[in-house]
Amino acid sequence: MAAAAAAAANGAGGGGGVPRPTNPMVTPLLTDLYQFTMAYAYWKAGKHLDRAVFDLYFRKNPFGGEFTIFGGLEECIRFIANFKLTDTEITFLRSAMPTCEDGFFEYLSSIDCSDVEVYAIPEGSVVFPKVPLMIIEGPVAVIQLLETPFLSLVNYASLVTTNAARHRLVAGKSKNLLEFGLRRAQGPDGGISASRYCYMGGFDATSNVAAGRLFGIPIRGTHSHAFVSSFMGLDDIIDRTLASSDGSNKCEDFVSLVQNWLARIKDAGSLRGTFRETNLSELAAFTSYALAFPNSFLALVDTYDAAGIRLDSGDLAYLSVETRKFFRAIEEEFGFIGFGKMNITASNDLNEETIDALNKQGHEVDAFGIGTYLVTCYAQAALGCVFKLVEINKQPRIKLSEDVSIPCKKRCYRLFGKEGYPLVDIMTGEDEPAPKVGERLLCRHPFNESKRAYVVPQHVEELLKCYWPGTTSEPREELPSINEIRSRCMGYLDRMRPDHMRRLNPTPYKVSVSAKLYDFIHFLWLNEAPVGELQ
Amino acid sequence: MAAAAAAAANGAGGGGGVPRPTNPMVTPLLTDLYQFTMAYAYWKAGKHLDRAVFDLYFRKNPFGGEFTIFGGLEECIRFIANFKLTDTEITFLRSAMPTCEDGFFEYLSSIDCSDVEVYAIPEGSVVFPKVPLMIIEGPVAVIQLLETPFLSLVNYASLVTTNAARHRLVAGKSKNLLEFGLRRAQGPDGGISASRYCYMGGFDATSNVAAGRLFGIPIRGTHSHAFVSSFMGLDDIIDRTLASSDGSNKCEDFVSLVQNWLARIKDAGSLRGTFRETNLSELAAFTSYALAFPNSFLALVDTYDAAGIRLDSGDLAYLSVETRKFFRAIEEEFGFIGFGKMNITASNDLNEETIDALNKQGHEVDAFGIGTYLVTCYAQAALGCVFKLVEINKQPRIKLSEDVSIPCKKRCYRLFGKEGYPLVDIMTGEDEPAPKVGERLLCRHPFNESKRAYVVPQHVEELLKCYWPGTTSEPREELPSINEIRSRCMGYLDRMRPDHMRRLNPTPYKVSVSAKLYDFIHFLWLNEAPVGELQ
Repeated sequence: MAAAAAAAANGAGGGGGVPRPTNPMVTPLLTDLYQFTMAYAYWKAGKHLDRAVFDLYFRKNPFGGEFTIFGGLEECIRFIANFKLTDTEITFLRSAMPTCEDGFFEYLSSIDCSDVEVYAIPEGSVVFPKVPLMIIEGPVAVIQLLETPFLSLVNYASLVTTNAARHRLVAGKSKNLLEFGLRRAQGPDGGISASRYCYMGGFDATSNVAAGRLFGIPIRGTHSHAFVSSFMGLDDIIDRTLASSDGSNKCEDFVSLVQNWLARIKDAGSLRGTFRETNLSELAAFTSYALAFPNSFLALVDTYDAAGIRLDSGDLAYLSVETRKFFRAIEEEFGFIGFGKMNITASNDLNEETIDALNKQGHEVDAFGIGTYLVTCYAQAALGCVFKLVEINKQPRIKLSEDVSIPCKKRCYRLFGKEGYPLVDIMTGEDEPAPKVGERLLCRHPFNESKRAYVVPQHVEELLKCYWPGTTSEPREELPSINEIRSRCMGYLDRMRPDHMRRLNPTPYKVSVSAKLYDFIHFLWLNEAPVGELQ
Repeated sequence: MAAAAAAAANGAGGGGGVPRPTNPMVTPLLTDLYQFTMAYAYWKAGKHLDRAVFDLYFRKNPFGGEFTIFGGLEECIRFIANFKLTDTEITFLRSAMPTCEDGFFEYLSSIDCSDVEVYAIPEGSVVFPKVPLMIIEGPVAVIQLLETPFLSLVNYASLVTTNAARHRLVAGKSKNLLEFGLRRAQGPDGGISASRYCYMGGFDATSNVAAGRLFGIPIRGTHSHAFVSSFMGLDDIIDRTLASSDGSNKCEDFVSLVQNWLARIKDAGSLRGTFRETNLSELAAFTSYALAFPNSFLALVDTYDAAGIRLDSGDLAYLSVETRKFFRAIEEEFGFIGFGKMNITASNDLNEETIDALNKQGHEVDAFGIGTYLVTCYAQAALGCVFKLVEINKQPRIKLSEDVSIPCKKRCYRLFGKEGYPLVDIMTGEDEPAPKVGERLLCRHPFNESKRAYVVPQHVEELLKCYWPGTTSEPREELPSINEIRSRCMGYLDRMRPDHMRRLNPTPYKVSVSAKLYDFIHFLWLNEAPVGELQ
């Protein structure tokens, strides 16, 4: 449904009914120049059709945590489903690479992704370092052209989904989480991506209208300080009538009604001393807003939420507690059932730490509006996803550097224990048998020979599924709706052992390789690594 | 020219020949819902046409520095020049705000920005906290609809331009600065914006092909590790012929030529001991790349740049020095004039600090490729631009909070001293006379009564110009090309007093108000602020 809505918004795509990327700027030119210069060098060497396998993975969980949520898959699939260089794009490339032969540009014009296979972990899954989020196989020149767009679509999406999930974990399930970050996001697409992936990671709504339209995310908002300060006083309110919500009767002077109630509240014994001065321009603004939205009034107090208030400055723990007391006192004094439970929203530069601190102090906040720190991932502004060649023409490749890549086309499984928690992820060679329920299996740390453990899985899930079958006859996984992905994400988070998920000193989740893959990695490693000479 | 190119790419816009926003996702719905709910409340109160003035400004310079570069203006002007809600957008808004009256949606359909005025500091200028970057005047309901898009277009643009300028300052003018951040940027538009604004802030080129096409920015790139490891050995190279660049003769076996030279270099007396093993698959990859790009060879060594090398890991200071020595030895040994000066590019997680550290250690790097830390503004991922109401229906408005806004529609000037440096920015009321060259003037800190100074300016520049005249007859400033903005930015940076610009303990630049505006602010402040009661 989300895909359908976006298709309607963007124009349907050409690729097997898969719509185009949500952002029209995501085209085959949205890549690093070196992908095209390499493609030329491959073509020139006659190697462009060599069958290559690349892993897309990250090396370290963000935000000091021990988990990540995978986001961005749908956009990658939309990208390759519609991959085709236009004539004007080819013309630009010719001008950018003037020494390249004509035949190369003819080849580029002919490229689509019908001979590319993409295997991926479902979007919204909890994922861990080193295990490929995606395995991409196809002609080496084509796969290189996919590298930068895929990384650009996955890196930030996964980072901000993870950030949102972390905010959900600290806020608890009962709170309303609102994403308010558009104005501080890194460019307009940063803002739209943030709204989408924060929802996927567990937020309830966004302030971003365009994201609401594109993805069907609930949208929320009331008014800002500017609205409050645009009123000079109660005389600014011309039309003072207010019909009851069923239309059965009408209040002719709502402003007077407000003033009368204000006087009654000030005089009420249990509330005496709570009130001092009332700023009449603020009162005018709130009254006016109530006239416009009688059924969904929310006032910004420093600014005020259906009915309720929004606290946007000061000591939010203290103010929320005092506000709650006041609401309860009004409920008691005047017998307004439910008034004491009225909504208290808090905003103002919130992040994981401040919510954690509010929890420790005690607060009465029902909803958190979170912007800058959430959408820019202020605590860590990038996730270092990489895209590494692991096999070419069936020959395994390894990259030796500070971070050694794991060679070979692989299969990846998650093994679950007796209590239902995931115990370990394991990577095996492509042709090894899958781990079996009830059968003891040796799981080895990929690089540390002393770290290994036997596991008897109670349940086994293969992690990567086929999202783009290319030249194979495998069935293609459907792209689920954003709400399905969000539910799955919440479900995955619930299934994790709590000590992997806690904020303070979380336990690392184990990622392993099979004994056979371990031996092969180390054989290749020794083979490739030069023997040093001490001088 | 940049605007023309982008217009060609995006389709010309409707607004007085101003093209549409570069990113097609930038539409009137790219805003916070509360802008629409407020617009409704204004409309409902009959206040929607009230003439309002808003300032867009920031409160603190980013990255621990004392200056900021203003970016994003052209996109704001493109946005308002083409501002019009489509019928499908109105339909969506009706569904999102089901309790609002029909008349309001008719009003929304009718809105354009012909009655809006935008004054702004030229894009690429050095700017300071509190001084409005933009002053926006028009019907209050319309201006509120502009708030979020303007902030979204200015916040990240200014932040990343400033980050790029800071990298240029630390790297020095003679180095080549290459932006390689697309894959780690916050969404595809984050990547495209980063490439554009990093160029504006002083970078020389980008790896981002789409940004090259959209803005005419020079693009650069060679090859990655994957290219190197895709070769098994020299047998992979089929076509071994290489014609000389003038086509006059042809080398039949370039591979053998490379091997012969390798042997000669290994044997050369002055180079003995420098070489150990040669990895033949790497040699094959480099040879192959050289065959594809004989005139612009750059090798990635951990990977190798026309001609030259790229260092992507290890101790870059040491490796660059050793590489330079080696190049020089080859120049001397074989008499290849200029070989010693061959290009050394460094990449691998560089940022301001690492370049500063390399400078201190001493290095031989000619070009820096900078990605993640640059484009995500890792050191500070957001600039807190705000949009505040300062006047409505000619009545000044002030917002009291931790940061008091400066009320009134203002004029802003930069005053220059004898040595040509800017001394202070001053804000005055709209109707005050402009500061005059040679006339003594009192400049006051807006909030601190003891901070004030007399200045006799040698040169006066009015900071904000009219970029969208709306209902006035003022001439409209043209939108300059990206290269003009970049040159202006470099020029402005050169004119600043060096102590404002240094990395360590920079001197804050002074921002002031006129004596008359000071008195008025404090009159309003006392009037608005409630007198506390201690209990």
